[in-house]
Amino acid sequence: MSIYTRSGDRGRTRLVGGVRDKDDIRVEAYGTVDEANAFVGEAISRLDSVRDGDLAGHLLEIQQELFDCGADLAALPGKRPYKVHAEMINRLEPLIDSYLAEARPVQRFILPGGHPAAAALHVCRVLVRRAERRVVTLSQREEINPEVLRYLNRLSDFFFAAARAINARTGTGDIEYVRSPIVFR
Amino acid sequence: MSIYTRSGDRGRTRLVGGVRDKDDIRVEAYGTVDEANAFVGEAISRLDSVRDGDLAGHLLEIQQELFDCGADLAALPGKRPYKVHAEMINRLEPLIDSYLAEARPVQRFILPGGHPAAAALHVCRVLVRRAERRVVTLSQREEINPEVLRYLNRLSDFFFAAARAINARTGTGDIEYVRSPIVFR
Amino acid sequence: MSIYTRSGDRGRTRLVGGVRDKDDIRVEAYGTVDEANAFVGEAISRLDSVRDGDLAGHLLEIQQELFDCGADLAALPGKRPYKVHAEMINRLEPLIDSYLAEARPVQRFILPGGHPAAAALHVCRVLVRRAERRVVTLSQREEINPEVLRYLNRLSDFFFAAARAINARTGTGDIEYVRSPIVFR
Ligand code: B12
Ligand code: B12
Ligand code: B12
Ligand SMILES: C[C@H]1O[C@@H](n2cnc3c(N)ncnc32)[C@H](O)[C@@H]1O
Ligand SMILES: C[C@H]1O[C@@H](n2cnc3c(N)ncnc32)[C@H](O)[C@@H]1O
Ligand SMILES: C[C@H]1O[C@@H](n2cnc3c(N)ncnc32)[C@H](O)[C@@H]1O
Ligand SMILES: [Mg+2]
Ligand SMILES: [Mg+2]
Ligand SMILES: [Mg+2]
Repeated sequence: MSIYTRSGDRGRTRLVGGVRDKDDIRVEAYGTVDEANAFVGEAISRLDSVRDGDLAGHLLEIQQELFDCGADLAALPGKRPYKVHAEMINRLEPLIDSYLAEARPVQRFILPGGHPAAAALHVCRVLVRRAERRVVTLSQREEINPEVLRYLNRLSDFFFAAARAINARTGTGDIEYVRSPIVFR
Repeated sequence: MSIYTRSGDRGRTRLVGGVRDKDDIRVEAYGTVDEANAFVGEAISRLDSVRDGDLAGHLLEIQQELFDCGADLAALPGKRPYKVHAEMINRLEPLIDSYLAEARPVQRFILPGGHPAAAALHVCRVLVRRAERRVVTLSQREEINPEVLRYLNRLSDFFFAAARAINARTGTGDIEYVRSPIVFR
Repeated sequence: MSIYTRSGDRGRTRLVGGVRDKDDIRVEAYGTVDEANAFVGEAISRLDSVRDGDLAGHLLEIQQELFDCGADLAALPGKRPYKVHAEMINRLEPLIDSYLAEARPVQRFILPGGHPAAAALHVCRVLVRRAERRVVTLSQREEINPEVLRYLNRLSDFFFAAARAINARTGTGDIEYVRSPIVFR
């Protein structure tokens, strides 16, 4: 069978356990997770395999976990055991702390960018935040695995930390938003 | 006349044959096609002109065709003959088959990424899928050229195939989603 | 205090002067401005520091100003004096003219892409246009600083001009959409 089945040519599609319009909020939610995942692929392709081998490993693991998120969102409630568990969030938290510890502390917002890999990680950050918003909308209308929301919330903080670490490692540094109030305490 | 006409400063804008709010679903639809097109520009700029000359040619043709999609969506029904025709879809299908044939068959989902050009092609894939969702929403409310939907549906499969071909050509390969069920048959 | 406060784990979040669902249109609006800003970071990281030093400077200034936009959108009306003022738009306009003057005039739509930095600038263009659409939606429901809308409208024209300038400077040139009507007058 070819990958193009033509079955979605008129705007309807399958999920696990049902059929929906392609613009259904559930499809929008896992479609946006897929979008975020594609940008993680971008970020990985910018890393220096020696200097950033640790981060490349973590990002590949995160790509697997974003598929777990997508899998939980694509299945109608009860159709399949959930794949996202609290341990995944517990594993992210110390990573955030340790990447952040590589960078000089800041009190003000910083401009997203710097080293090309850091710029790509900030893009991942904002994409994960958009995915989180779409999952929030879905969660108001249908039952979802609540761990997916917690995971995505932590994940955008992970990308913030990782971007800062890359700018620290490469001596690029971060530029502050000059009119920022004190926001990080 | 300058390109900045200031006429849209308060949130209204022109399409072909009418005036709408900028957040009208029709504007959102062709705006998202424009967004997808910009990422195709990105992907082209990553290709190796020798090794991937064939794909560069196809992507430039696709950029022209995404403008055809945008043109059909920007014109109110009846204002102008449609530009997207069945032949455009018929031309994509054998290309999908031949790019996919370059890669080792897989049965499981693969992580979007790999070679920088493949990563960019996966980004195109997800952007085209978002454009498709927006056009689906539009099509539920207003008359559109149905060939645009078929074209976009096939186009995201084209980008999947092209990404796999680049990872095969460059010896990068694709990494499977480890907890994936068998999905490609 | 760590950056992950866990307080947003269930889909609610703080803005300046209130609490909202994360998928509230106000959060969506400044979240999309943040997304656009991340891609400006990408574009900057592609510039040649010698040839494009002027543009790098302008883009860093624009990143600061996108934070000003975000700040105005994140604060409920009356909570804080606005940061986006007419002078910011007045400063953009002559820059648009002078970047456009570097490129050969065109009458037809051009394909987004070309030099990698120009491709990235076209991506900024479409992201700013999406941000503008989200701010338009917000402005229909709640009070906002109207200068933010004017700024974003002009900013996407700035990115169009800057992309054309880079393709001119690098001898890349722009490819026209072959079936385009005469659109630039
Ligand atoms: C708007 C906003 C954003 C916007 C910024 C938009 C913009 N352009 O300005 C966006 C969406 C970009 C954003 C992004 C992020 N944000 Co934010 N953001 C906020 C938010 C809602 C408002 C910030 C603000 O302007 N505050 C105004 C200040 C001045 O208000 P205030 O703290 O209440 O201060 C008042 C008083 O306390 C007093 N005061 C203030 N400072 C001091 C100091 C002293 C000594 C004294 C006496 C008094 C005093 O004066 C103020 C008068 O009103 C805050 C939450 C909040 N309500 O503050 C989060 C917040 C700052 N963000 C936070 C985080 C984590 C982030 C991100 C890392 C999230 C992510 N993963 O992407 C990124 C970082 C982005 C970057 N590039 O740096 C966290 C920081 C947590 C922490 N522990 O440090 C906060 C606190 C939210 C939270 N979790 O509770 N954010
Ligand atoms: C969710 C989903 C996605 C999500 C994945 C989310 C995630 N993280 O898991 C996203 C949006 C990312 C996605 C993307 C794509 N997808 Co998809 N996706 C699906 C979907 C809806 C569910 C997949 C799933 O988990 N199935 C669960 C399986 C186990 O269910 P099942 O097949 O019904 O299997 C049951 C039984 O049949 C039996 N069974 C299964 N296998 C076997 C084998 C044997 C021997 C036996 C006896 C029994 C058996 O056991 C199962 C019990 O429930 C399927 C359609 C569908 N409903 O299956 C498409 C589907 C797999 N996708 C498809 C395609 C084409 C794609 C894309 C290429 C689209 C694109 N252009 O981007 C990409 C590829 C992405 C990548 N990186 O690899 C096609 C594949 C067509 C084909 N001919 O191979 C499908 C079938 C949709 C379709 N067109 O009909 N997808
Ligand atoms: C749809 C559209 C888009 C779509 C294109 C979709 C697509 N794939 O086709 C998108 C969203 C991508 C787009 C993007 C942009 N656009 Co635009 N777009 C339009 C729009 C609404 C329609 C274009 C069109 O097809 N017109 C059809 C023509 C043929 O209609 P017409 O001009 O009314 O022409 C009729 C008659 O006047 C007569 N006629 C036409 N030409 C001539 C010549 C002569 C000699 C004679 C006698 C008669 C004649 O024949 C026509 C019969 O119907 C126009 C506004 C508009 N309504 O025209 C803006 C417009 C062309 N866009 C404009 C701009 C600025 C842009 C962007 C730069 C914005 C940005 N910052 O991103 C980009 C550039 C993109 C690029 N890559 O080049 C401006 C140009 C302003 C100017 N002074 O030149 C316009 C005019 C909007 C405006 N501000 O008023 N756009
Ligand atoms: C740092 C600030 O970002 C906002 N915020 C929290 N979650 C999201 C999200 N998913 N997308 C956009 N903005 C968000 C809140 O206002 C928070 O306080
Ligand atoms: C491969 C799977 O992706 C989903 N699907 C189909 N079309 C789209 C789209 N435009 N955007 C996001 N997801 C989509 C369906 O669930 C399909 O089965
Ligand atoms: C150039 C054309 O682009 C459309 N247009 C104007 N503003 C936006 C926006 N923010 N997003 C998408 N499309 C827009 C209008 O149709 C305009 O005429
Ligand atoms: Mg958060
Ligand atoms: Mg499809
Ligand atoms: Mg405009």
